[in-house]
Amino acid sequence: MKIEAVDFFYLSMPDVTIAADGSQDALLVRVAAGGHIGWGECEAAPLPSIAAFVCPMSHGACRPVAASVLGATLDGPESITRIGARVERDSMDLLQAAHTFSGIEMALWDLLGQHRQLPVWKMLGFEKATSKIPYASLLFGDTADETLARARKALADGFSAVKFGWGPIGTLDAAFDADHFVAAREGIGNDGHLMVDVGQIFVEDIEAAAARLPALEQARAHWLEEPFSGHAFEAYADLAARSPNVGIAGGEAAHNIAMARHLMDFGKVKFVQIDCGRIGGIGPAFEVAQLAQVRGVTYVNHTFTTHLALSASLQPFAGIADDRICEYPANPSALALAVVANPITRNLAGEVFAPDAPGLGVKVDTDALKPYLVDTEIKVGGKVIYATPSLG
Amino acid sequence: MKIEAVDFFYLSMPDVTIAADGSQDALLVRVAAGGHIGWGECEAAPLPSIAAFVCPMSHGACRPVAASVLGATLDGPESITRIGARVERDSMDLLQAAHTFSGIEMALWDLLGQHRQLPVWKMLGFEKATSKIPYASLLFGDTADETLARARKALADGFSAVKFGWGPIGTLDAAFDADHFVAAREGIGNDGHLMVDVGQIFVEDIEAAAARLPALEQARAHWLEEPFSGHAFEAYADLAARSPNVGIAGGEAAHNIAMARHLMDFGKVKFVQIDCGRIGGIGPAFEVAQLAQVRGVTYVNHTFTTHLALSASLQPFAGIADDRICEYPANPSALALAVVANPITRNLAGEVFAPDAPGLGVKVDTDALKPYLVDTEIKVGGKVIYATPSLG
Repeated sequence: MKIEAVDFFYLSMPDVTIAADGSQDALLVRVAAGGHIGWGECEAAPLPSIAAFVCPMSHGACRPVAASVLGATLDGPESITRIGARVERDSMDLLQAAHTFSGIEMALWDLLGQHRQLPVWKMLGFEKATSKIPYASLLFGDTADETLARARKALADGFSAVKFGWGPIGTLDAAFDADHFVAAREGIGNDGHLMVDVGQIFVEDIEAAAARLPALEQARAHWLEEPFSGHAFEAYADLAARSPNVGIAGGEAAHNIAMARHLMDFGKVKFVQIDCGRIGGIGPAFEVAQLAQVRGVTYVNHTFTTHLALSASLQPFAGIADDRICEYPANPSALALAVVANPITRNLAGEVFAPDAPGLGVKVDTDALKPYLVDTEIKVGGKVIYATPSLG
Repeated sequence: MKIEAVDFFYLSMPDVTIAADGSQDALLVRVAAGGHIGWGECEAAPLPSIAAFVCPMSHGACRPVAASVLGATLDGPESITRIGARVERDSMDLLQAAHTFSGIEMALWDLLGQHRQLPVWKMLGFEKATSKIPYASLLFGDTADETLARARKALADGFSAVKFGWGPIGTLDAAFDADHFVAAREGIGNDGHLMVDVGQIFVEDIEAAAARLPALEQARAHWLEEPFSGHAFEAYADLAARSPNVGIAGGEAAHNIAMARHLMDFGKVKFVQIDCGRIGGIGPAFEVAQLAQVRGVTYVNHTFTTHLALSASLQPFAGIADDRICEYPANPSALALAVVANPITRNLAGEVFAPDAPGLGVKVDTDALKPYLVDTEIKVGGKVIYATPSLG
C-alpha cells in the first residue's frame, strides 16, 4: 500500500483554562492507504504539530514530516519503523517532529490492523492481552477536603487505584502537601493503590522533593511521579537513592527512545511512563517496554485524554502480565469523551484489556467531533498549505 | 521595562534544496521594550517556531511561548533567566518552545545591551573578549576532488582551520570517506586544524563510526563531530573510549542545558558545540560553557547561518581564552549574508572577537531582507493570529 493522505483535525473545548487537564484540546490524525483508514492522536500542541507536518523544507535535515510520510510504502510493521527512522533523520532539526509523527505512527498501526484484521498488540508479537488495573487519573483539589472528596468519588466509581496530580502540590510547603496525601489515602481507603504526580514542580531541587517523601511513605504512595523536569536524570537518581519505599516514576516527556532509556539507566526510576502520542508512536513505546522488562522497571502508559489514545497506549505492554497498572482517564473533557464511540470499559472485576479487535479497536465518532473542530488555515507565500479537512 | 512586542520574520531563499545548508532560510525575531529594539535568530524551522509562539493554549503546561514573554518585565539578566524558566514550565509540553524562545532570548540580551550600552559578553561577566580562531564551516564535495578544491579555496581565503561536514560521508564505505579526509587534509595543508562533521549519519552504530577512525587519525582530524544522534550518549561514550587521538564532538541538537551536560558526563565528548538558536538562547549556552570549563571540555559555538547568530553564539564563551576555536559560516546563502550590515570580520591575524559594541553589536539590515521575506498568515477559529509584520 502507498500512504495516500494524512489529515490533521484540531479539536478544542470552547474554553481552555490553565488547569493541567490535557484533554481540553486534541489533535487527531487520519491516514488513508489501500482503501483503509487509520486513526491516531498526538498528545501535543495542535497548531505547531500541524505546522511541523506542512511547513516548507528549511534544508535536508529540516524537512517537514509530510516529506517522510506521504507516498511512502506501508507493507507491514517494518515499514512503520522505516518511516519513523526517516522522520528522525530528515526532520532532525525540527524539534516538534516527534510529537507530530506520534499520531501518524498510531494511525499507521491502526490502518495496518484493519488491513490484516489483527489487533495491534498481536502484530507486536503478544499472544494475548493481559488484564490491567486502571487507575483513575485525577487532579488534586485546591484544598485537602476537595482532594478527599475526589478520592471518595473515585472509590465509589469502582476504582481500586487512583493517581492524584498537579494542583497546588509543591507550590506551598511540605506540610500543606502532606495534608493532601493523607486526604487522598483516606478517600480511597486502605487497600487501594495511591499514586502521586507532582508535574515537574521541583525542576531540579532534590531537597524540596525529598521533603515530601516522609508524608508519601506514610500515605503508602505506590510512586512519586515527575518530581523533576524530564531531562534531570541526575536529580531523579539522587532522589531514588533516598527513597527506598516510594518508587520514583517518570517518562511522559520522552520524545524518543533514548530519553526513556536514560531515565531508567541514569535516572534510576522504578516506573517508566510513556505517552505514545509523544515518543514517536506505538513502536518506540513497545521498544521502551522491552527495555524496561530487561531492567526490572515497570512500564506504565501515560494517558490523560481520549480512548483512542488509551487504546494506542495499552498496545506496547498489552501482553506483559507483570505490568499490571494502567493510567485511565477518569474525568476527561466532553471533547475527549466524544472522540470514541466504543470506549474501553472496565469489566466486572474493574480491569481493562487492550481491545481484541482489528487495529486499535476503537471507532472514531466523526459526527460527535464536529462541534469541537477548530477551523484552521495556514498560508505561506500566498499559498494555502493547510486548511482544516472535512471530517467526512 | 515591559516587553511590548515580539515580531517574527520568516525569510527564505527562493529555492531551498536538500543540501545540509542551514542558511537557506532564517527566522529572525525583533523585540521591543522601553524604546529599544533587540534582534535574535532561531536556528529552527520557521513556521512551527512561529506557531509555537502564537498558538492557542492547550492547557496550563502547554501554553504558547507568547504567554511567558509578552508584557513580562525586563530589568536585567535575571529577568531573562526568569522568563526562560517560565517558558520551560508553562510550555513544558510544547516541544518546539525551546527553539522558538532561543531567538527571543538573544533579542532580549541585545535589547538589554542597547539599554545599558554594554556588549552582551560584559553583562555575562567577562572582562574582555578573547581572540578566536574561526574555522571555515564547509560541506564535503560529492567527490574527493571537489572536497580538495573546497579545502584549497578555504586556505586561499586565509582560513587556518576548516571543518568539512555532511555530503556523502557515511553513506558509502569507510574507504570512500578516507579519500575525502585525505583530500581535505591535502587541501588545507599540514598546519591547519581539520575538523570532520558526519551529521548523525551512524545513528547509534558504533562499529560503523569506529571504522572511520583510522583515516581520521591519519588525516590528523582535530575532532569527529556528531557521529550519532543527539541523544545517543552511550554510543558517544563507547566511541570516545576507542578514540584516544581524535576527540569526539557534539551538542548542536541540545535544546536544553541538561542535554548538553549529559553529552559531556555520559557521552564523554571532548568538545561541546552549542547552538544558541536552539538551546534556549545565550544564557543557557553560557551555563554550558561554565560546565564545560569545570570538566575540561572545550566549548565551541555551532553557527552555520548569519552574523547575527554568529555574534550571539560567540557571547557565551567570548572571554574564555582557552576555548580558541569558533565556527564561522564561510559559504552562507545570499540571504544569510544580507541579514547583517556590519559582519564580524577576521583581523589581519585571521582571528575574530565578539563585537565590542552594545548588545550583540550587529546591525540588522531590514531593507536588504525585504526580498527574502516570506509572507505568512495563520488563522485559527476565523481569527488571524499571525501575519508577517512589517520590517519597517
